[in-house]
Amino acid sequence: MSPRASPAFSTGGPFTPSTGASSATWRGPSSARPKPKPKLHHEGAGRGEGGAFLPTPQTAPAPSPNVKAMRVLITGATGGLGGAFARALKGHDLLLSGRRAGALAELAREVGARALPADLADDLEAKALLEEVGPLDLLVHAVGKAGRASVREAGRDLVEEMLAAHLLTAAFVLKHARFQKGARAVFFGAYPRYVQVPGFAAYAAAKGALEAYLEAARKELLREGVHLVLVRLPAVATGLWAPLGGPPKGALSPEEAARKVLEGLFREPVPALLEV
Amino acid sequence: MSPRASPAFSTGGPFTPSTGASSATWRGPSSARPKPKPKLHHEGAGRGEGGAFLPTPQTAPAPSPNVKAMRVLITGATGGLGGAFARALKGHDLLLSGRRAGALAELAREVGARALPADLADDLEAKALLEEVGPLDLLVHAVGKAGRASVREAGRDLVEEMLAAHLLTAAFVLKHARFQKGARAVFFGAYPRYVQVPGFAAYAAAKGALEAYLEAARKELLREGVHLVLVRLPAVATGLWAPLGGPPKGALSPEEAARKVLEGLFREPVPALLEV
Repeated sequence: MSPRASPAFSTGGPFTPSTGASSATWRGPSSARPKPKPKLHHEGAGRGEGGAFLPTPQTAPAPSPNVKAMRVLITGATGGLGGAFARALKGHDLLLSGRRAGALAELAREVGARALPADLADDLEAKALLEEVGPLDLLVHAVGKAGRASVREAGRDLVEEMLAAHLLTAAFVLKHARFQKGARAVFFGAYPRYVQVPGFAAYAAAKGALEAYLEAARKELLREGVHLVLVRLPAVATGLWAPLGGPPKGALSPEEAARKVLEGLFREPVPALLEV
Repeated sequence: MSPRASPAFSTGGPFTPSTGASSATWRGPSSARPKPKPKLHHEGAGRGEGGAFLPTPQTAPAPSPNVKAMRVLITGATGGLGGAFARALKGHDLLLSGRRAGALAELAREVGARALPADLADDLEAKALLEEVGPLDLLVHAVGKAGRASVREAGRDLVEEMLAAHLLTAAFVLKHARFQKGARAVFFGAYPRYVQVPGFAAYAAAKGALEAYLEAARKELLREGVHLVLVRLPAVATGLWAPLGGPPKGALSPEEAARKVLEGLFREPVPALLEV
């Protein structure tokens, strides 16, 4: 789980968020300097810009006098990916949710966040959590679970477990979340070619359901000024793989995955699909 | 529900199934005549071939001395689409399933089939049904349900109802079905651009889940010599639309939809995706 010492990770510069209307609740350092050419927002992310919007473990954390803190909810925070986002966003107004209260409290102490345990597959728990956290600038829904079974063996339990973890949690969070105008909500889909393979029909179905749900939801949420970002990651070395015997070779570290997502997330126009 | 008097419907000729290894359990009329060039199997469907594999209400039903009856299970048979398949396949060894026992019995009498009521969202009912029907040549899974709700209003009930109707029934049928070698199993997905729209996130998720499940399942089933065919239809004028205020203008009649699917279904190579 430790960060890879890849050159990209240790030398990647901090990211300068846009200050356009769709991201009005926080201010990147670019608001205090001449506005860079729009093209840079697409191509220059993380390259040679000042400021400290996106902290890494090696750099000072945001926010700074030039960077207003965002209100961020990370769900599934006790997972490997959620934890990496929590550490990468340390210094912002961080709210962490997960099912394991002990591990959540520990992580919250480490990154200076509030811990709000909840089981988001429960509509009422999701409602209570989202009401408590109030209007968000950023939601990172890092909830997920993997499981394997052949079509001839797949039981109701496995199929429903996958759907609850991936689709229901996302649906309930989206149903109850309140957002600031210009907020971003991040969900993790899957590359179809990686998951639509023998043994993974239930997992693939849950990811397919989530992606389809988001595509319909995207248009509804956009009317509220909220941007849904569907992220597809390659394999990430997290506990998700534990039931499958561990992550495959070449899996991204969670820190690397979080960094790449955060780099892509604040581009303008907001990416609807972010394939890492 | 009566067949449209479109020229294509009333004049479309019967279809000659391939007699290749992948469809060995029934015999089209081509087995008694010189084998047509392979190209005709793709392009000549329904054009000028003898025999009566695919009956229409206007023609004598299959089977005939040249056409061996297929063992066919139609699920959701009391729906508009399932009923149209039942009538189009009259004369084959037909097994019909659905939840409404009365309507099912009536349809079974009309087309000379066996009625086997079942709720296929129940794993055990699916198991019992599929064990009773034995090895199939053709499965047409015409089970579905529509529902509308915004993301901000979608309740657990609607989401789970959609998933149960579309994904769970399909998963349980595939889990327990027995097939003859070369059998085809037909499921109805949806064009993403038609269903991934505001108000239909739950329906879109269920169809997305089904399509993803099938793509993973396809490779598993192919090892058993079974071909999964994912069909995407435009709107079809069935009771599915009742909760939504009726079908949209220009919807296909169920008879037309069934005819087009059956025309495409027996091409070689078997189409993985059949977009009507």
